[in-house]
Amino acid sequence: MKKIELSVIPGDGIGKEVVPEAIRVLDTVANIHGGLKFNNIEYPWSSQYYVEHGKMMPDNALDLLSQSDAIFLGAIGDPALVKDHISLGGLLLKIRREFEQVINVRPAKLLKGMVSPLSNPKDFDMIIVRENSEGEYSSSGGRVHNGIDEIVVQNAVFTKKGVSRVMEYAFELARKRSGHLTSATKSNGIVHSMPFWDEVLSEISQKYSDVQMQNIHIDALSAFFITKPQTMDVVVASNLFGDILSDIGGAIMGSIGIAPAANINLNGKYPSMFEPVHGSAPDIYGKGIANPIGQIWTAKMMLDHLGEEELGALVLEAIEDTLHAGIKTPDIGGKSTMTEVTDTIISNIEEKA
Amino acid sequence: MKKIELSVIPGDGIGKEVVPEAIRVLDTVANIHGGLKFNNIEYPWSSQYYVEHGKMMPDNALDLLSQSDAIFLGAIGDPALVKDHISLGGLLLKIRREFEQVINVRPAKLLKGMVSPLSNPKDFDMIIVRENSEGEYSSSGGRVHNGIDEIVVQNAVFTKKGVSRVMEYAFELARKRSGHLTSATKSNGIVHSMPFWDEVLSEISQKYSDVQMQNIHIDALSAFFITKPQTMDVVVASNLFGDILSDIGGAIMGSIGIAPAANINLNGKYPSMFEPVHGSAPDIYGKGIANPIGQIWTAKMMLDHLGEEELGALVLEAIEDTLHAGIKTPDIGGKSTMTEVTDTIISNIEEKA
Ligand SMILES: CC(C)[C@H](C(=O)O)[C@@H](O)C(=O)O
Ligand SMILES: CC(C)[C@H](C(=O)O)[C@@H](O)C(=O)O
Repeated sequence: MKKIELSVIPGDGIGKEVVPEAIRVLDTVANIHGGLKFNNIEYPWSSQYYVEHGKMMPDNALDLLSQSDAIFLGAIGDPALVKDHISLGGLLLKIRREFEQVINVRPAKLLKGMVSPLSNPKDFDMIIVRENSEGEYSSSGGRVHNGIDEIVVQNAVFTKKGVSRVMEYAFELARKRSGHLTSATKSNGIVHSMPFWDEVLSEISQKYSDVQMQNIHIDALSAFFITKPQTMDVVVASNLFGDILSDIGGAIMGSIGIAPAANINLNGKYPSMFEPVHGSAPDIYGKGIANPIGQIWTAKMMLDHLGEEELGALVLEAIEDTLHAGIKTPDIGGKSTMTEVTDTIISNIEEKA
Repeated sequence: MKKIELSVIPGDGIGKEVVPEAIRVLDTVANIHGGLKFNNIEYPWSSQYYVEHGKMMPDNALDLLSQSDAIFLGAIGDPALVKDHISLGGLLLKIRREFEQVINVRPAKLLKGMVSPLSNPKDFDMIIVRENSEGEYSSSGGRVHNGIDEIVVQNAVFTKKGVSRVMEYAFELARKRSGHLTSATKSNGIVHSMPFWDEVLSEISQKYSDVQMQNIHIDALSAFFITKPQTMDVVVASNLFGDILSDIGGAIMGSIGIAPAANINLNGKYPSMFEPVHGSAPDIYGKGIANPIGQIWTAKMMLDHLGEEELGALVLEAIEDTLHAGIKTPDIGGKSTMTEVTDTIISNIEEKA
């Protein structure tokens, strides 16, 4: 029996609704497999937890999480309870950092049955490889107030090791897939960090002469995600640029509500974390209409990561069949409830298995 | 006779083609007006100039430009001749900075006759107000190499005065238009500069209680430009975020090739500069198929700025009539040449006048 110790953090808002749905799917594939079992430990850490305890997680949270094989996260953030930078900094960003989840992998793929807002979407299928530990998301910086003006400095910090690592990961992935890599830069306007980014790209690319490579400024690249997403395959980007591109990716897929993500720890010291791209959407929480597909597709990425690619493929196929049959939540033009969507995905899995 | 002293910098690539086209349009409206005349002085400053002189502009360039009422720029950049950060830093960004062109105004509007890549584009009509002098585009930063790693720091610098100024401009514009302002932030991930941005927004908004205001993270906002651009009117953004949003704006309008921009000097000390959003596109230079509309719409923004709003309106109407009649360059699905497009715009202007 292969036992997976899973830390489950539903978090805020619709996170609390879609995580149990995705766990139903995980249990289904574990059953089918026969020799696989998820041991879930659920943690109530959230904005509500903050209100009660004055912190997003207990002091030994990282110790607890470090015992597990993977972390399965819903969504964090409820501005009515806690300011975003506190809730996110105290949980999501903290885990990403402390557990050295240095790569954030985010597919943007046109699924069968999804309606893209693009009028003529060619069959695009990209993977955004986002640097997840440094760059623009740094706590370095501060303020000066001299009575004449107030000056705020925000430091972006890039390292050779950090940039090389994400580039290597992206080149390897591109080699395995299509042999085609796009890098997001802005070296024409941002003159220290981005020319450095370009240099490292060019240095690493020497080792991957079989991979075709293009380096495009983030403004133009954002536009290309709209005008010709089918020409991109693996896209490597800094923390901020990856954040922006993956939301654009979500939009052209038909909804950010279906977009999955994986925060990957590369050195094996800590668990990786799996969380959809969407937020906690407090406005629709409790109505039973949240789209569970982002969380379920995220579960598929976790299965892949745990070496269960066959089960992962089964889940994605079942998602596509469900969408194709028109079983959709309202955000993507359907009339089904969250539960109906999950139920259909589960019966599709059981049928195919 | 109202004489406008115009500094004209065609620049690189298609800049050299589309600038003369837009000047034909300017001459047309000046003729119609009767009492208006453009005195153009053309400067050959460009990447080619750099190859010949080792600099993008002569040492007295800013002196020369400062004599004029406005600067009309084509496009800068030709990576085959000069590295982008040198060509842009030495001309475009230098003029923006030295002439205190602190606001970059960039409309994103669905023109009659344009085909958007969005399948169901509602009638959107936005103006992006981009901070143009500070923020992420700063030369502050550098490298450390300690034998273990190489660390690069890039500083983004925001000031109370700089942020207030662009916010005031945006609120005033929103008040004049729809009473509706959207701000682009990322305070959930970027913890010094962006919470400061939010604070200044909230402070300035006190004076504009008649303006409805929303503050959206750049990742989500980029997605909203695709899924619901019609819900936005004036959008205020930092230097980098404004750069990205205006290219997305160009994409959803149907082509970056038609997107105009104005770099506004607010204190009256220096001329403002008018340049389209698109680049120099060296790959299509010389083929006579460059889209002149970005440059011509930019000329319309210059007319507005010079107090000739009626002529400006005439130009935009003529552009829309031309597009509506299907007279388009290949980049937007037509078969016409650049010259044919301009000729049609000019005869449309003459007909309406
Ligand atoms: C060329 C580049 C430096 C410039 C910018 O980022 O400002 C351009 O993209 C623009 O939008 O005007
Ligand atoms: C919530 C926010 C801090 C986060 C990020 O920017 O990383 C989110 O947008 C994401 O993409 O995971």
